[in-house]
Amino acid sequence: MADRFEIMQKALIKMLEEKKYTTLRDILVTMNPSDIAGIFTELEDRQIPLLFRLLTKEQAAETFVEMEPEAQELLIRGFSDNELKEILEELYADDAADLIEEMPANVVKRILKQATPELRNSVNQLLRYPENSAGSMMTTEYVTLRPDMTVEESILRIRRQGVDKETIYTCYVTRDRVLIGMVTVKDLLLCADDETVIEDIMLTNLISVSTQTDQEEVARMLSKYNFLALPVVDKENRMVGIVTFDDAMDVMEDEATEDMELMGGILPSEKTYLRSSAFDLFKSRVPWLMLLMVSATFTGLIITAFEGALAAQVALTAFIPMLMGTGGNSGSQSSVTVIRSLSLDELRFGDIGRVLWKELRTALLCGIALAAVCFVKIWLVDRMLMGNEAITLTVDAVVCLTLCVTVVIAKLVGCSLPMIAKVLHLDPAVMASPFISTIVDALSLLVYFLFATLLLGI
Amino acid sequence: MADRFEIMQKALIKMLEEKKYTTLRDILVTMNPSDIAGIFTELEDRQIPLLFRLLTKEQAAETFVEMEPEAQELLIRGFSDNELKEILEELYADDAADLIEEMPANVVKRILKQATPELRNSVNQLLRYPENSAGSMMTTEYVTLRPDMTVEESILRIRRQGVDKETIYTCYVTRDRVLIGMVTVKDLLLCADDETVIEDIMLTNLISVSTQTDQEEVARMLSKYNFLALPVVDKENRMVGIVTFDDAMDVMEDEATEDMELMGGILPSEKTYLRSSAFDLFKSRVPWLMLLMVSATFTGLIITAFEGALAAQVALTAFIPMLMGTGGNSGSQSSVTVIRSLSLDELRFGDIGRVLWKELRTALLCGIALAAVCFVKIWLVDRMLMGNEAITLTVDAVVCLTLCVTVVIAKLVGCSLPMIAKVLHLDPAVMASPFISTIVDALSLLVYFLFATLLLGI
Repeated sequence: MADRFEIMQKALIKMLEEKKYTTLRDILVTMNPSDIAGIFTELEDRQIPLLFRLLTKEQAAETFVEMEPEAQELLIRGFSDNELKEILEELYADDAADLIEEMPANVVKRILKQATPELRNSVNQLLRYPENSAGSMMTTEYVTLRPDMTVEESILRIRRQGVDKETIYTCYVTRDRVLIGMVTVKDLLLCADDETVIEDIMLTNLISVSTQTDQEEVARMLSKYNFLALPVVDKENRMVGIVTFDDAMDVMEDEATEDMELMGGILPSEKTYLRSSAFDLFKSRVPWLMLLMVSATFTGLIITAFEGALAAQVALTAFIPMLMGTGGNSGSQSSVTVIRSLSLDELRFGDIGRVLWKELRTALLCGIALAAVCFVKIWLVDRMLMGNEAITLTVDAVVCLTLCVTVVIAKLVGCSLPMIAKVLHLDPAVMASPFISTIVDALSLLVYFLFATLLLGI
Repeated sequence: MADRFEIMQKALIKMLEEKKYTTLRDILVTMNPSDIAGIFTELEDRQIPLLFRLLTKEQAAETFVEMEPEAQELLIRGFSDNELKEILEELYADDAADLIEEMPANVVKRILKQATPELRNSVNQLLRYPENSAGSMMTTEYVTLRPDMTVEESILRIRRQGVDKETIYTCYVTRDRVLIGMVTVKDLLLCADDETVIEDIMLTNLISVSTQTDQEEVARMLSKYNFLALPVVDKENRMVGIVTFDDAMDVMEDEATEDMELMGGILPSEKTYLRSSAFDLFKSRVPWLMLLMVSATFTGLIITAFEGALAAQVALTAFIPMLMGTGGNSGSQSSVTVIRSLSLDELRFGDIGRVLWKELRTALLCGIALAAVCFVKIWLVDRMLMGNEAITLTVDAVVCLTLCVTVVIAKLVGCSLPMIAKVLHLDPAVMASPFISTIVDALSLLVYFLFATLLLGI
């Protein structure tokens, strides 16, 4: 599938180079805007306007929205005022607002000059909402009906107004701009009697979000309720916009990516991997590495403090990586599970007691199983097979007791830190494996040397 | 928001206990099925049928679909044959198939006995497709039109048939069951002339998936093209079903969760966190921990082999946790970025050259920055502040050279393993941090002792 598409892309680019414009136009007209936008990422700068001019007017606008900001800027700079006006006329207000956020100031000025007063108005309004809020992701183009309209009148209104609306399938019923109900096109079409009044068939148990609601919450609600669109209201419950399912899907993808990046100790970035330069990647990765490297000073200090013990029982050193690795892995298992459950809203801070109890039992099961296997493995492999006489039964016991305790500590730390972060209104994903590993490393070394001192008398 | 809902839940449960059924029914009728299903998870077993009987017929079916399998089973066992039949009549074929997959054999038998022959047929057909394929997630209820129908006839057909269809907004045009076009209700409603023939307005550059397409691919396509639904065709291009956006959203969420679980070294599970017992969690977590613990034998062996060197320069031991930690973190940063880009289809195996080159430069930037800071830190903190005379300039150099090389190795291993997994048709997420850390740990120790031998002459 993907490869067939790549072959087709190459063929189209070759046609462009060979100036086979008529054939190219015939092929482009059958293609989907998302796929056409994909071709633009593979073109050289001078080819971009060439290919763009081959698109039909409607396709041009839809493709434009899907393109990368660099290509958009290049095109706008090359557009005549008239061309720019034509594209802007085809854009939905939320797409235009996104575009303006990405462009440099002088390009924004040109865009706003060519936009219709209505578009300029909607865009300005959208840009006033906080980033990542329902207000900033909503569109202001939706269909409203009055409660006293009949089904027939409503359908007529949709047919007249629908062409400019992002969705016509969910219509909102307002009185003095206040949202009072909702009716779907399905309800209207399936309604047997054309004279039925909207008020009698509209749904009134409405679910809406405020302009300030976080976009993650909006996406989760759309997904939970299986809605095509969710109405956005202001503080006075006046309807100001809608968020559609396709924007919610993008948010879900972005939020999952952001969580994964945070879990991996990376500062989230909006750019895709291949578009990020090595320096971009460096900037988003080095802060965590630096922080964790410096905080590893503690583990170093602990080892230095017990240098005497290690010199006396040199076999102990060999197990440090295994203990720390298992601790880190156990902790990250718990933190990943809890972080994901929190972000899917399956878990709240009030559940912390249940979580700790569940993790404690899981940790004991894991810890005992691991310690048992480790005990046998050390004896069979390290002592018998490799013939390391320094490994006595007591050394083996110290290692395995530490292993079990480390797993328990790691799981308890791993599950509680993300929940605490949530309560402090931090992103729980920040409290993921790298951070937890550093804490667990230090704790497990302390436990190790404690058992060594107690059992080996050093 | 969430808390207000919890308070409401508690109030409703209290009403149920106090047998205030009329009030309860009045409130339930205004609520959304997803939210009602949420209440059932908080009820005791004996209360479940009580509350369920208070729902209207339509609400009952919609709520039933959103409930947990345990509650569904309990309800079915309590249903009379007639009640079961009523619920089944309201279910879409894909929801019925999901239900049957979750229920034990004797319940399935009862369900199939009460289902209409058509439903039984559709369900059987759906159950025959491989798990996680488009065929298994599609629904067979969609609207088809003939190419020679007029717009008016089409709207009439939708009004007659639509009530049983999962979506009416996208209609598919078929000839001899072969998919030849697509038309939206928006197109139909906005078409000025009722006598226009479908063939003239239908879209023919169709994007469809086969019954065998993986559900992740289907979800990605729906999200990429912003479609409400995607047609599913068999090998002869005959239309067999549609996948709707709401199912795609669920798949996206599940796949992101699965990737995160794999990245955290957990075997994915379908159960939510709070529904999993400690033993369930143990089973999904212990395999990776066991594997990684045993493979840490290598790091242990490497340390044992260089025991002499460590005994001679005991200060070296203190830096092992820092080196391994930084290596692990660097590797997981690269693997997380690459795994996510692969799963969003932003990256293909053909890009491996570009990826390696980008990671190499990023790694050098990170490695040099970290080594420089580390060099100064060791000298100022460990030597001057803590007064550790064993740390000479050469020891400091050995540690920082190792640090830089480790970061480079970690990033190259971290980015290439997931890409290799992809080519071998394994899930790239399996090649995440825990796995990579173990490899990087061993390599970084080898580098450490190599530099120590060369520079310190031990």
